[in-house]
Amino acid sequence: MNTRMIGFLLGRILMVEAGLLALPLLTALLYGEPLMPWLATMLVLAAIGGALSLRKPERTALYAKDGFAAVALVWLLMSAFGALPFVLSGDIPNYIDAFFETVSGFTTTGASILTAVEPLSRGGLLWRSFTHWVGGMGVLVFVMAILPMSDGHTMHILRAEMPGPTAGKLVSRMSDTAKILYGMYFVMTLVMIGLLLLGGMDLFDASVHAFGAAGTGGFSSRNASVGAYNSAYIDVVTGIGMLAFGINFNLYYFLLMRRFRDVAKSEELWAYLGIVAFSTVTIAANIRHLYGAVGTSLRHAFFQVSSIITTTGYATVDFDQWPGYAKTVLVLLMFVGGCAGSTGGGLKVTRVVTLVKAAFMDMRKMIHPNAVVNVRMEGRAMPEKQVRGVQAYFSVYMLLYAVSWLLLSLNGFDLLSTFTALSACINNIGPGLGMVGPTGNFSAFAPWAKLLLSFDMLAGRLEIFPMLLLFVPSTWRGNRLRRWERRN
Amino acid sequence: MNTRMIGFLLGRILMVEAGLLALPLLTALLYGEPLMPWLATMLVLAAIGGALSLRKPERTALYAKDGFAAVALVWLLMSAFGALPFVLSGDIPNYIDAFFETVSGFTTTGASILTAVEPLSRGGLLWRSFTHWVGGMGVLVFVMAILPMSDGHTMHILRAEMPGPTAGKLVSRMSDTAKILYGMYFVMTLVMIGLLLLGGMDLFDASVHAFGAAGTGGFSSRNASVGAYNSAYIDVVTGIGMLAFGINFNLYYFLLMRRFRDVAKSEELWAYLGIVAFSTVTIAANIRHLYGAVGTSLRHAFFQVSSIITTTGYATVDFDQWPGYAKTVLVLLMFVGGCAGSTGGGLKVTRVVTLVKAAFMDMRKMIHPNAVVNVRMEGRAMPEKQVRGVQAYFSVYMLLYAVSWLLLSLNGFDLLSTFTALSACINNIGPGLGMVGPTGNFSAFAPWAKLLLSFDMLAGRLEIFPMLLLFVPSTWRGNRLRRWERRN
Repeated sequence: MNTRMIGFLLGRILMVEAGLLALPLLTALLYGEPLMPWLATMLVLAAIGGALSLRKPERTALYAKDGFAAVALVWLLMSAFGALPFVLSGDIPNYIDAFFETVSGFTTTGASILTAVEPLSRGGLLWRSFTHWVGGMGVLVFVMAILPMSDGHTMHILRAEMPGPTAGKLVSRMSDTAKILYGMYFVMTLVMIGLLLLGGMDLFDASVHAFGAAGTGGFSSRNASVGAYNSAYIDVVTGIGMLAFGINFNLYYFLLMRRFRDVAKSEELWAYLGIVAFSTVTIAANIRHLYGAVGTSLRHAFFQVSSIITTTGYATVDFDQWPGYAKTVLVLLMFVGGCAGSTGGGLKVTRVVTLVKAAFMDMRKMIHPNAVVNVRMEGRAMPEKQVRGVQAYFSVYMLLYAVSWLLLSLNGFDLLSTFTALSACINNIGPGLGMVGPTGNFSAFAPWAKLLLSFDMLAGRLEIFPMLLLFVPSTWRGNRLRRWERRN
Repeated sequence: MNTRMIGFLLGRILMVEAGLLALPLLTALLYGEPLMPWLATMLVLAAIGGALSLRKPERTALYAKDGFAAVALVWLLMSAFGALPFVLSGDIPNYIDAFFETVSGFTTTGASILTAVEPLSRGGLLWRSFTHWVGGMGVLVFVMAILPMSDGHTMHILRAEMPGPTAGKLVSRMSDTAKILYGMYFVMTLVMIGLLLLGGMDLFDASVHAFGAAGTGGFSSRNASVGAYNSAYIDVVTGIGMLAFGINFNLYYFLLMRRFRDVAKSEELWAYLGIVAFSTVTIAANIRHLYGAVGTSLRHAFFQVSSIITTTGYATVDFDQWPGYAKTVLVLLMFVGGCAGSTGGGLKVTRVVTLVKAAFMDMRKMIHPNAVVNVRMEGRAMPEKQVRGVQAYFSVYMLLYAVSWLLLSLNGFDLLSTFTALSACINNIGPGLGMVGPTGNFSAFAPWAKLLLSFDMLAGRLEIFPMLLLFVPSTWRGNRLRRWERRN
């Protein structure tokens, strides 16, 4: 384990976080709120970050396990320090609550322990949503985009932080890839802010909701979430916006490069849009009696489907009141999640497609034990190793689910609330059903349960392994194996 | 596809079913009930069965897909005809209800559409429970035990019908293996009947409950299930009995052969007993406030844990009233199920152990990408292919879950009832929570939902693939591939 290099990285990132706090600081200044909480946190971050990254270590190489450990620690520390302003400002006096809220922010979950968000300071509200934006594309990707680093050290990190089973480089240099990704992300967010301004939101609300949609987070500045605006325009813009940020960003790069064929042949994209269309139409039919008009049913169905499949978690209606079929679809969509390489959470559409195709492959193998059968994706045969990798990931994911569910049930709430609270956290969505439905919140959970859910949010955002590996002794042990590798 | 041979097999088995009906016929005779329903069904079965199996086909070879198709069709037809006496006697006038009840019987599920069982005829009650006994060890295994057949044709069938990822022969000849299995099963059931008689049950009730426990089915002759006897002795005997029938029968053979070391080194057995012990103790602690005494809590916890993990479904209390943790453990146990090669359903303990070990293997692979890491089971490295096979099975199983859940939700009941009804059927347990809890039943579901759940029960009992393959066109297509195989 290259402890020095990980420490150096951590230091750099804490300094970046200090820089990010400039945005809420500015907001507080504009609205005449106390600046102390922001300045104090920035000072702490700069001091600790500066001390850690004072001298770049000579050996900068990072191995796979270093990458995982670095990513897990970065996200934990960013959240631990990012929670400070909430405590200092009194917005969220309890530190564990503030930590939960910040983890929920960075992981783009959007689950809240707040019973009402409107009393929060403007600076606090903006920081809360800005964490979504930063967490959406990944903090380390961000650092790669702005700090010079050699490629050999960063691929492991990108792999660990980018959602989805595969992390590809768009261009040969890693740091250029990171710059392109963040560039597109930045521009798309600006467009989103502009569109929301046109819908009558002020700049503050537009920024909050654009950050929430871009990061597929879901924190709002209004208690009734997006439903508070009661505007078809805003519903449609936000619905389409969320959907857009749930698409693999590589496809936007292809669009820019005019490689339209590469976009059109993306099976994940078509599956994603197909699932959205199917869910929207069938839910609209299922809820029609609640809203009368077909248009209104479609609008609410589309918004909620887009919000849940992208794992954003905004709501325009209390879908906890919907009938069984509609709620079941939403719960299943929680597992599906967005596309790989997007800001969305969940299993990712590509994994779900692979699982379904693999099921058919396994059936064909049963009938014809000696035939060669493959999972075909985008016209090519997927290597069996990769297919089995997805099935393995799914198994580990479900085991984490089972263990977390068992532990969380000790908090004593009803099964549906417990199960959907967990689903909402592990898949980085935000609201669930029952107690944690769109009109509810996570405040009733015990402090230990909030920490467990924080762990699950981080595990969900970082695709499980980095967080689990923190508990495996050999992650922390010396380099016995590295020596072994060198010998062989 | 060897249609003639499959037809011949089906015919033989329908004739065997006609023979099995002698037991309820005898019961009806003893209790002075009408004999017509039994005699008429026997006649129909004998006629159709006789016509189908009049002449043994020349080509008797069965390929893998023939084996799957044969098993699926056998179970469907046995249930379709086995339902007739219920309709003819008026016990269950609606055919779909009777079909559901019979599928639930043969698959050893124990889910019932009856609001009360006590008004049923004695013959009907006995037949209902006897289907558990027959289905538990497998109808085709039974046929193999009593009819002479060559080994080459039967291995595929045993593989498709025996629960668990691997089906091993105990002795070199398949038919001898089947005889040994049924012999042990028969003796253990007799012991169970004897023990229940000692507890004060009459022969009828003792038989019904011994059949239910042996097949891990769960049908009772009493509305309040085993709880009706309110006897600690009967609870403990039934609890231990169910547990015993949830153990791999190979281990009993090893015991008979005095191969104690082979028993002691069974990891699945220890995991199974460990899960039962852990669940019993923690649930007892969780429900203590409901029952006061530690002993009573332990007794009820043990009975319910044993009943659910073995997928029997008997109940001594209404566990739907238990607190969240206890219910969550029970729901998770529904997925675990019994040991491979037992009469229990669910995923099977060995698969769960493999999934957990594989998760750790995958973690070690993450840390040390170049190291050779294995899943070790019973001191030996499991071939990676086998490990991935279990993860693949789990993926297909969860997909079946998702699709069934979506469809079943169209029936419009609450999420928890729908989800646990499905869990109870797919894992062959019987009762779930909410509407289908221990005091509820499946009568409220629509006819199409009952057929869907019947499909899921059969899919669960036959380990999914045989039932799914019925819908794959190439199962029914000619022998293109066989020719291909011959050429190569």
